[in-house]
Amino acid sequence: MEKNNLPIGVFDSGVGGLTVCREIFRNLPNEKIIYFGDTARVPYGNKSQETIIRYSKQIAQFLVNQNVKAIVIACNTASALALDALKDFVDVPVIGVVEPGAVAANKVTRNNRIGVIATAGTISSGLYGRYIRELNPEAQIFGQPCPLFVSLVEEGMIDDPVTIMMIHRYIDGLIEKDDIDTLILGCTHYPLLRTVIAREIGNGITLVNPAYETANALKDLLIREGLESTKKADFHDHDFFVSDGTKKFQEFAKEVLELDIEDAKLKILE
Amino acid sequence: MEKNNLPIGVFDSGVGGLTVCREIFRNLPNEKIIYFGDTARVPYGNKSQETIIRYSKQIAQFLVNQNVKAIVIACNTASALALDALKDFVDVPVIGVVEPGAVAANKVTRNNRIGVIATAGTISSGLYGRYIRELNPEAQIFGQPCPLFVSLVEEGMIDDPVTIMMIHRYIDGLIEKDDIDTLILGCTHYPLLRTVIAREIGNGITLVNPAYETANALKDLLIREGLESTKKADFHDHDFFVSDGTKKFQEFAKEVLELDIEDAKLKILE
Repeated sequence: MEKNNLPIGVFDSGVGGLTVCREIFRNLPNEKIIYFGDTARVPYGNKSQETIIRYSKQIAQFLVNQNVKAIVIACNTASALALDALKDFVDVPVIGVVEPGAVAANKVTRNNRIGVIATAGTISSGLYGRYIRELNPEAQIFGQPCPLFVSLVEEGMIDDPVTIMMIHRYIDGLIEKDDIDTLILGCTHYPLLRTVIAREIGNGITLVNPAYETANALKDLLIREGLESTKKADFHDHDFFVSDGTKKFQEFAKEVLELDIEDAKLKILE
Repeated sequence: MEKNNLPIGVFDSGVGGLTVCREIFRNLPNEKIIYFGDTARVPYGNKSQETIIRYSKQIAQFLVNQNVKAIVIACNTASALALDALKDFVDVPVIGVVEPGAVAANKVTRNNRIGVIATAGTISSGLYGRYIRELNPEAQIFGQPCPLFVSLVEEGMIDDPVTIMMIHRYIDGLIEKDDIDTLILGCTHYPLLRTVIAREIGNGITLVNPAYETANALKDLLIREGLESTKKADFHDHDFFVSDGTKKFQEFAKEVLELDIEDAKLKILE
């Protein structure tokens, strides 16, 4: 097959990376995706860098064996902790969600005070801050881990009093004390809380969705490397693999993302 | 070494199984423990039976290689989904936390209406109900998954407005609608919420802690099989292994359980 028409590998710790797929479907309708969700070992957010790198390499190897032309790390934690290791490990281009999110946040901030909400692993990596300060040494970055958000989203508790209470607990200080004007939704699950967060924290704060920015960055990458697909992809051209629970994955895709994935396949990586 | 003085293997998906260790330390001060917490793949509660059995066998093999005389599955989900598979897989006696919890609940109920709060995996296994109805065919069991409790405990949000709201959301129906008089805390993390749950749901409901009952069941097993240790164990005789994040494990042990584990070791199982 011509290299241009090979698929793109997208992976995440679980189901959340489908938010990135959705943006790629919208923005790059010609591209065929092979998705891998590591549902047997989800979540990644509180695990160590060594463990995240080991899991990411196993998944990247699987995707390379599927003959992908590029890899998108749809998971913020794996992007923050394993991007450099994967770039050395595989021969195809690899992009994560952190750099595109950082670039976008830097474009929209007016007062150079940017908040990041993410998992503990992403926050303690400091990677959003490193990318942003490379572009803009004046920027100040305020990180806030939001460890309950993933469970709340996975339980479907989106517009729920408990979720609203946690939104205020996690985010009010970033606005009132740290005076941010821009907030990066630095975990794949968080864009699903976007509407509720926007309503609760009020106007004046611009929310940045790295999933959306990553689809744009992928488009730029494919153009730059001459790798754009020349054929329209149908939804059934995409392949979805998970390491556990195909049915649960399909239910989440349907209920939360309105994606009709009929034949997710089980793939155990160890 | 004499068989009696060999250690007991105890395992859990993560840190929660230390609540079982604590009861064993109290009740069986002569026994030396080798603990394994699968922190690289935690949590187990929402994963499939095949995956839980695969992980449990890997851990049981590791414990058998350490020459344990018996294995305690301290994780409710693994007890519910993998106990039978492990009994066939290893040559030493294996006990889980579900049967001892079921026996105790059946002893204390007066109206034969028993609630179980646990992970989705434990609830859908129906195993608490199977054990209880074997002893008492009149008993009715009402299961309620509480998927947020593990995250709330791991975040240290014990006596917290969010936790209190979730306690009422999960448990009020079991009391008001199902008229239970006994409630099994069917996940290793939940005994850490015991005081708050007891205060919030009021008198008249007996809480059953399977961790406590399992230490009693282990004692009976050791006596029955003639496997009781003859030497007093010091705290530093115990060994603690985790598959990720030794430092985080030690911090949780110290802060939440007041256990001073100084040298947890990393052991990757794949």
